[in-house]
Amino acid sequence: MSGLDGVVQPLLTDMYQITMAYAYWSAGTHASNAVFDLFFRVNPFHGEFTIFAGLSDCVEFLRKFRFSASDIEYLKAELPSAKPEFFEYLAKLTAREVKLYAIPEGTVVFPRLPLLRVEGPLALVQLLETALLNLINYASLVATNAARFRLATGPKAELLEFGLRRAQGPNGGLSASKYSYLGGFDGTSNVMAGKLFGIPVRGTHAHAFVMSFASTSGAAALQHATLTHKTTGQKHNLRQLSFKWRDTLLRASMFESRSKANDGELCAFISYASAFPENFLGLVDTYDVIRSGLINFCAVAMALDECGYRAIGIRIDSGDLAYLSRVSYKCFQSISSKYNKPYFADLRIVVSNDINEETVISLNEQGHSINSYGIGTHLVTCQKQPALGCVYKLVEIGHEPCIKLSNDINKVTIPGQKKVYRLYGKDGHPLLDLMQLNDENPPEVGSKVLCRHPFEETKRAYVCPNKVELLHQLYWGDGVVKEHAPDLKKLRDRVLGQMESLRADIKRTLNPTPYKVSVSEKLYSFMHDLWLENAPIGELC
Amino acid sequence: MSGLDGVVQPLLTDMYQITMAYAYWSAGTHASNAVFDLFFRVNPFHGEFTIFAGLSDCVEFLRKFRFSASDIEYLKAELPSAKPEFFEYLAKLTAREVKLYAIPEGTVVFPRLPLLRVEGPLALVQLLETALLNLINYASLVATNAARFRLATGPKAELLEFGLRRAQGPNGGLSASKYSYLGGFDGTSNVMAGKLFGIPVRGTHAHAFVMSFASTSGAAALQHATLTHKTTGQKHNLRQLSFKWRDTLLRASMFESRSKANDGELCAFISYASAFPENFLGLVDTYDVIRSGLINFCAVAMALDECGYRAIGIRIDSGDLAYLSRVSYKCFQSISSKYNKPYFADLRIVVSNDINEETVISLNEQGHSINSYGIGTHLVTCQKQPALGCVYKLVEIGHEPCIKLSNDINKVTIPGQKKVYRLYGKDGHPLLDLMQLNDENPPEVGSKVLCRHPFEETKRAYVCPNKVELLHQLYWGDGVVKEHAPDLKKLRDRVLGQMESLRADIKRTLNPTPYKVSVSEKLYSFMHDLWLENAPIGELC
Repeated sequence: MSGLDGVVQPLLTDMYQITMAYAYWSAGTHASNAVFDLFFRVNPFHGEFTIFAGLSDCVEFLRKFRFSASDIEYLKAELPSAKPEFFEYLAKLTAREVKLYAIPEGTVVFPRLPLLRVEGPLALVQLLETALLNLINYASLVATNAARFRLATGPKAELLEFGLRRAQGPNGGLSASKYSYLGGFDGTSNVMAGKLFGIPVRGTHAHAFVMSFASTSGAAALQHATLTHKTTGQKHNLRQLSFKWRDTLLRASMFESRSKANDGELCAFISYASAFPENFLGLVDTYDVIRSGLINFCAVAMALDECGYRAIGIRIDSGDLAYLSRVSYKCFQSISSKYNKPYFADLRIVVSNDINEETVISLNEQGHSINSYGIGTHLVTCQKQPALGCVYKLVEIGHEPCIKLSNDINKVTIPGQKKVYRLYGKDGHPLLDLMQLNDENPPEVGSKVLCRHPFEETKRAYVCPNKVELLHQLYWGDGVVKEHAPDLKKLRDRVLGQMESLRADIKRTLNPTPYKVSVSEKLYSFMHDLWLENAPIGELC
Repeated sequence: MSGLDGVVQPLLTDMYQITMAYAYWSAGTHASNAVFDLFFRVNPFHGEFTIFAGLSDCVEFLRKFRFSASDIEYLKAELPSAKPEFFEYLAKLTAREVKLYAIPEGTVVFPRLPLLRVEGPLALVQLLETALLNLINYASLVATNAARFRLATGPKAELLEFGLRRAQGPNGGLSASKYSYLGGFDGTSNVMAGKLFGIPVRGTHAHAFVMSFASTSGAAALQHATLTHKTTGQKHNLRQLSFKWRDTLLRASMFESRSKANDGELCAFISYASAFPENFLGLVDTYDVIRSGLINFCAVAMALDECGYRAIGIRIDSGDLAYLSRVSYKCFQSISSKYNKPYFADLRIVVSNDINEETVISLNEQGHSINSYGIGTHLVTCQKQPALGCVYKLVEIGHEPCIKLSNDINKVTIPGQKKVYRLYGKDGHPLLDLMQLNDENPPEVGSKVLCRHPFEETKRAYVCPNKVELLHQLYWGDGVVKEHAPDLKKLRDRVLGQMESLRADIKRTLNPTPYKVSVSEKLYSFMHDLWLENAPIGELC
């Protein structure tokens, strides 16, 4: 069962795909063999890399592609002038005759690489466009965003996706959770994503939980908060123990503040800890981190300790996160050493509150003691660049290559069917990607190959690869899945591995080095000849 | 049937809602009566208004709220330490005991107004938080964005949503289409949205369609493109007619350019027009608008005319949209007058290509002849501000009002149950909104009422309303829908009416005037007393 099941249907498309299908069908060109490339033109987030994601959803879409009877009825009503035979054609249509070549999901990719190459009858492959773009665009964008957060926090930090409430509706939230995890996050708050995709799910409590114990009835409920000792089986009153520990710790001057902390908050922590003695992580900023939250947390943590349980840590959701994390860390160190509780020095410090990539970088510069981040809005909305801008362009029709011209050179397409190779250097890093005509011999390890910039004629380089990798594989053909997607966890590992192998200067935030996507000498000549052949000549006389 | 059906389930929530529910249940506070307000703190897009949307989805969510057996199994596995009785409690839970008060969907709203007031047993209303936020946040954001585009283009322009391929997955695209329409758009390209929500669907063809006729086979297919005259029934060869008209128009110097336009493009237009003689709208920028697309379009449009059909217009998807629209308009005028075809002067000029609100404003300044806009990426991703930031805050627990404190005054909540009134002036415009304690007498028409800024004590005004409107209604209670949502078309009309009634200075793009959301004298004193009671006093001695 997938939460996406109900929606990724052939009708999830732009109307012009349907009208074009009818026009092709009317002209009799619907069965012409067509080849489309799906690619993007610019890396997102001012970066120089992108994580390719969404492929398995595309394969699933092809596998199930079929207009339902009610779809056909709807389309008939929308296109009253179309001939009935067209709807018979649509009703029988499946993706059997489509071939889908793709770069493996989770690969680091770059502008102009065909992420997908879709071949098949013109009208049919045209009808696939919108759904394929929809499935790749956001998945790749959010996976890339996640990978950038991973780069910024380093490999050891825990990264949690908290964005469900800010996503584009329910399913936007599910896509965000799934592809953040693929991009290198450790978990999500989204329970449905946990159930559907097996992603680790995390969460403790909110400010409202703390506030609810401010009332007399809330606090009264705790009078009999007994907790059984983890090993001895002895019963303890967690409430009494926590109040006692708060006095003890305050008298021992373990805190920066001597304030009497908020009692409702203490009751809330006691309540949470007695419900989850193995998983007590307290949100400490409802009233004031230093004057209240931290004190109450430590009191309950030490009370839990007396019952044989170890607290997990704290979450800070407002204020100066770098400073508050350092104060908290210092406090944990003091208690750890005074009471000889080594684990207390390593309590987890989670931060949240509108964190973006720049916040993480700034926290790193300031110095902090954070070891876990909850990222919501900026991760799921990709605030810095909320769309990747993938396009789906015709590159061959009726076995003749074709080219889309544009006054903007970046919008010119690279015609025809191409093979794409990734060439690696001696140190194991990828050097560049090379596109060739389909019938050229592949580049050979140890042999010099000329790689050209697709548009700028003076930019050329000889490369002598240490390893050559053909990027595309056939994922769908003859009506069956040709290559099964690894599970989400394996895709995540693949992304981490790919990011590891990418040169540091390509990954850096400030002025990263562009990775080169080049074309062979033959492809260069071929596309420029076709370009000149098709470009209109201006007349100024 | 709704495409959202499969997903808006109780499990679409953050894990901490579940853990809190367990902690409430363990402490015995789960049945305490709680009241939450759902509101936002800042209007989006640097504007001073927001359109409230997503309410009917919330009511639907409440109506269906029930954990499935497999949800319960999943939660048991995730919370192995929780007592079995808790899961029995969850399995029986419905939204029967919840009361949902809300401002009507499609109302113009402002920061701090409770859009929803949710009352009921603490654990249950806590469990609703994430889904309600998810359903309101994006719906309201995109509806507001749509309303801003409508303001910028004026009431007569046609506005079409083209964003499916750039949305957050399939369902993100559906939400975008639905709430863009609610916010004042005229139609969408998203066929599924048309089927599910009855939104008018639009679309013609893409560049790939034109390119596909560049091949010899594509052009050959057209040799026998016969079209039957609309009224006389006579058969015409549309291909011959179009080529003839192109020569005629070029010889008559009807265009800025004397170039021989692209033949593949002409064939594509002929093909499209013969499939849709009543709906011929040509995309004219595949090769060059002035040197090719416009010429070919006019040729086919005049050929169609000879067959008794009227072309619809053109779409321009690149280049200088203001200039190209003016050139096209001028050309249509000339042909209209030379061949005495009045409708030709009014042919539709649609533009697309990454248009945002600023683009529209800039086009207005430059002068243009556009009468239809296709808006994609910037509409659905809300690039300028991709999240509204609604929050869901506890304002009363166990019939005691409570307040969330914060060092940031904007984050302090307004405690307790409140009644909200919109006060109107003599000219029919809303003057301000006034929140009162639940038991205060409503403001009266013609009587002076003191309205205070909720936080700044010197900001006060007497208002003498000409009309008083109670904003909240009960939408869900006693397990039934209390107020049925109007259909989408009526909600759209409501938005247009609301926008019409809002003062122009509040709506303007540059430095708009903030609309005042005030509190009564009694509410002011009440909240400030509670605030002082709860705020910790610093110690600097």
